[in-house]
Amino acid sequence: MRRKTRRETIDPAEVYGGRSVLITGGLGFIGSSLAHRLVELGAVVDLVDAMVPNCGGNPFNIDRIRDRVGVHIADIDDREMTETMVRGRDFIFDLVGHVSHIDSLTDPQLDLRINCRCPLVLLEACRKHNPSAAVLFAGTRGQYGRTVKLPVTESHPLRPIDVNGVNKLASEMHHLLYHRLYGLRVCSLRLTNTFGPRHIMKHSRQGFLNWFIRLAMDDETLPVYGEGSQLRDFNYVDDVVEAMLLALAGEETSGRAFNLGGGRAVSLLDSARAVVAACGSGRIQHVPYPPEKQAIEVGDYWADHGLFTSVTGWQPVVPFEEGLRRTVAFYRDHREHYWGPGHDPAV
Amino acid sequence: MRRKTRRETIDPAEVYGGRSVLITGGLGFIGSSLAHRLVELGAVVDLVDAMVPNCGGNPFNIDRIRDRVGVHIADIDDREMTETMVRGRDFIFDLVGHVSHIDSLTDPQLDLRINCRCPLVLLEACRKHNPSAAVLFAGTRGQYGRTVKLPVTESHPLRPIDVNGVNKLASEMHHLLYHRLYGLRVCSLRLTNTFGPRHIMKHSRQGFLNWFIRLAMDDETLPVYGEGSQLRDFNYVDDVVEAMLLALAGEETSGRAFNLGGGRAVSLLDSARAVVAACGSGRIQHVPYPPEKQAIEVGDYWADHGLFTSVTGWQPVVPFEEGLRRTVAFYRDHREHYWGPGHDPAV
Repeated sequence: MRRKTRRETIDPAEVYGGRSVLITGGLGFIGSSLAHRLVELGAVVDLVDAMVPNCGGNPFNIDRIRDRVGVHIADIDDREMTETMVRGRDFIFDLVGHVSHIDSLTDPQLDLRINCRCPLVLLEACRKHNPSAAVLFAGTRGQYGRTVKLPVTESHPLRPIDVNGVNKLASEMHHLLYHRLYGLRVCSLRLTNTFGPRHIMKHSRQGFLNWFIRLAMDDETLPVYGEGSQLRDFNYVDDVVEAMLLALAGEETSGRAFNLGGGRAVSLLDSARAVVAACGSGRIQHVPYPPEKQAIEVGDYWADHGLFTSVTGWQPVVPFEEGLRRTVAFYRDHREHYWGPGHDPAV
Repeated sequence: MRRKTRRETIDPAEVYGGRSVLITGGLGFIGSSLAHRLVELGAVVDLVDAMVPNCGGNPFNIDRIRDRVGVHIADIDDREMTETMVRGRDFIFDLVGHVSHIDSLTDPQLDLRINCRCPLVLLEACRKHNPSAAVLFAGTRGQYGRTVKLPVTESHPLRPIDVNGVNKLASEMHHLLYHRLYGLRVCSLRLTNTFGPRHIMKHSRQGFLNWFIRLAMDDETLPVYGEGSQLRDFNYVDDVVEAMLLALAGEETSGRAFNLGGGRAVSLLDSARAVVAACGSGRIQHVPYPPEKQAIEVGDYWADHGLFTSVTGWQPVVPFEEGLRRTVAFYRDHREHYWGPGHDPAV
């Protein structure tokens, strides 16, 4: 007899239906995708987003659910506002941040504020005003730095090689401390390259894959650094959303950090080829590695998500190529809200 | 033939004489002690201190050298001021911070600002306006968290168990990144329990030893938690000052982190006994561990400083008991500037 996995025994509608949920960074890529799913599950959803330029917040991301969520344009750094916002919530998905590795070097203070200070304001607010809330922290593969062993498990050394990775690591440590010291229910998921609809498309600094999709859709040239043999691990956003729901559904994830992953490693070159195939346009050109990117290149990355699977039953279910297909279809329908003529450059 | 150590071959007066030195936290315990030594060596010394209450800044700390140093009451968080201050410096000792473990839990935002944000402002200022300066970062044993192997070497796991330790670890990582990415000359020394003259004496939250000295000098009772068998590693401040001078004297320390240590472990109970003996007054009482301190107790700590010794020749030369004797003598002469009647409580 097959062992029942968590996914089969936990019904997200039962966990989240009618419950109060706060999503920070709620107008961003993952936050807004999560919001759609939670609305579908019958949760009472509030979104807060500071709409920091170039971070991914986009009003169109919640176009379909605008009448069914509360929207608050505000900064988590505003302590009083945040204290008010956390009160009475059952679940808090803290998806502020996730700015780019390159940006974290050009403006390290902003990265520290968004990725370290804001989450600490939220944790303090929870400790003081809602210690029973469950809080999800979005970690990153960047916390590991250069990989020394593949696939990467949670016990891999944590030696980030850019400011963003350092700040994310510190923030995850703050979260786990708040669990240990104050009993807050927190869980960290260390995300790998997440892609899909609602991603920012106006610049390339939040991951190359969505940028490649834009270039290919515009029938332009996809620049592949070097031979493109570096391995990456991709997660389609819907799989990440399901992981986040499972992460806060039970107690056994509390005070722990888990890897997410797509279950397979894809080379940069192969990912570019798959994008061109999915779009039916665009072409690939090999170019030399830009020195500023070489310095923060982590080498191959491939996550072992076995620990999270063993605890929650989660599995990525959308194959890479299928995720690409859905992503391209979304942007074909809604391109004007993300780039090109008609796109509001302020978004 | 005995191998020559670094300390024998490097003359600090030759390295620092006539050179421009900036000390942040310059009116504090270690900063002001370092300032005295640098003035003696003929350096041109500027001190900057925000005089954040309860952090240790005390004008009397530089009473003897007031006419031979520049003093700037300012906050490193003020980016423009900091950019101005770093220009033209040969050496920068960044001794802002070092607030208490307990305080870091009651005001984690302040700890993050002082221990993480301010040093990052300084690093950015150096990168942009003085990339050839040598920068010292004061790390802490708190970066290791609960010790799993004694004595602790630099390869011990870094798993801090309080907010202060997390923030210090993140800041050290920022420093080492700035070396790797931009070639800044940075060195981190992970300090253990440093004690001596000029330490803040008005509260017990920056280490228990100086507090014990105050209590014993006032013929009061020294509370020893539990049996007092926990091991600690003490460094007299003059030894720490010499270590800092050596840390920036050469290139081979650049981009690296080193432990300091006193070379021997002393139990809390034995340290209390030594304080009572040095003062000729006071008494010891065993008391239960306060729960808020138990939660952030790291267990025994004893540093292996062999790596730093092998690179620089540094050795602690002031025995624990001799350090206590000098410390007590200092406070006997200057008590009114640190506590009790006549002490300005604003300091």
